[in-house]
Amino acid sequence: MSLNNRRDFIKKAAWSGALAISIPEIVSTAFAAGNKGQRITLNTSDVVLFQGDSITDAGRNKEQTSYNNANILGSGYALVAGSQLLLKYADKNLKVYNKGISGNKVYQLAERWDADCLDIKPQVLSILVGVNDYWHTLTGKYNGTIKTYRDDFKALLDRTLKALPNVKLIIGEPYAVNGVKAVTDAWYPAFDGYRIAAKELATEYKAIFIPYQAVYDEAIKHAPAAYWTGDGVHPSLAGAALMAEAWLKSIN
Amino acid sequence: MSLNNRRDFIKKAAWSGALAISIPEIVSTAFAAGNKGQRITLNTSDVVLFQGDSITDAGRNKEQTSYNNANILGSGYALVAGSQLLLKYADKNLKVYNKGISGNKVYQLAERWDADCLDIKPQVLSILVGVNDYWHTLTGKYNGTIKTYRDDFKALLDRTLKALPNVKLIIGEPYAVNGVKAVTDAWYPAFDGYRIAAKELATEYKAIFIPYQAVYDEAIKHAPAAYWTGDGVHPSLAGAALMAEAWLKSIN
Repeated sequence: MSLNNRRDFIKKAAWSGALAISIPEIVSTAFAAGNKGQRITLNTSDVVLFQGDSITDAGRNKEQTSYNNANILGSGYALVAGSQLLLKYADKNLKVYNKGISGNKVYQLAERWDADCLDIKPQVLSILVGVNDYWHTLTGKYNGTIKTYRDDFKALLDRTLKALPNVKLIIGEPYAVNGVKAVTDAWYPAFDGYRIAAKELATEYKAIFIPYQAVYDEAIKHAPAAYWTGDGVHPSLAGAALMAEAWLKSIN
Repeated sequence: MSLNNRRDFIKKAAWSGALAISIPEIVSTAFAAGNKGQRITLNTSDVVLFQGDSITDAGRNKEQTSYNNANILGSGYALVAGSQLLLKYADKNLKVYNKGISGNKVYQLAERWDADCLDIKPQVLSILVGVNDYWHTLTGKYNGTIKTYRDDFKALLDRTLKALPNVKLIIGEPYAVNGVKAVTDAWYPAFDGYRIAAKELATEYKAIFIPYQAVYDEAIKHAPAAYWTGDGVHPSLAGAALMAEAWLKSIN
């Protein structure tokens, strides 16, 4: 739909409250549609690593190198999902890390991948990256293309599986909420290519795919888009909880 | 049990993993036992306020006066519970505040109650206070007694209900994990009096009671006590998620 139509839609959707399906049900449905029942079973002493850009970083304290605490997990979906992992699987002695860094594109993950992924030896690796690979081309800060994104991401996954052949992969769909601040019709259809590429890579690498776009698209029928994200990209706390709910569906 | 017995117990309980009942089930059972099915139903535009000491504060940014965001909710149980409220009740336009302040005893809540509670006009008010009312007497910083705690708390609740007659109250049980760092046998049985007083006040004021002590007592059968709290009082992220899980049982 066009930006104006979408704005009207978003306005009308505000606090409708009358929808028959709850947010957790939305999330389950969207997850199941993308993953055909595939989930990850955690084992004792598993290391879970969240990797990505600012959406994952979410203001984490980068001077600490520990795990399982709120400062180092930031204040986004990795924190909310991490807190639930540590509660629900308390008997598993998990170590939950967050190594997301604000502004990162795939090539920047690659530059720090030894220290910030391979050395940590995760059993479960979750990667959410792509919005900057597109967004930064709009501001002239970056000239990578959709092919760059796909090729760089593929190389990163190959390198990961060579070092950690048994790692269980989770790939998050890059998402954006059109009509909110930074995100406009000008992003489309180009940005959709990044979403599609991430999904294709998830299939190719047998990763669990988290369909964040579908989840946000449904969530904005329950509350205004600005309730979930202030700028169309970065989640509010409600948005972080929404993403965590979707992410947690990947775990048995 | 004695401290040594408890330490042995805690050691043996570490990562046992073989218990038949899950943490969420424990929490449900403990909550139900204390509340006979009583829960709160949220309405559209309700204001939810978390009040208390450092356990509630959890490093929140006190320079911001807003609501619903991670910085101002801190990194403890109020953040985790708040994130889940904002997700599950996204259609209700809730405002979730945290006004906990580290070190507070009941009289210190009273000193700032107009600005930090009554003016905010919560429909749902959650108070967790009491550990400092006891703990600070051990360090000579405070000479209040159990009677002071009960009388001050009663006066605070009377004042609250006079200003906000329809407020729905939640009272959290002060808790401590014996055998972890700050908490020793020397706390008992004196500290138990504060737990009992909080429960009696919850009954008297028709508040929902969150049985945090029972919840921690069960949780340490699933993972070492230090997994849930570093010093016996302040929760880890896992402990914060545990408390949030218990707190959320108070909401329909």
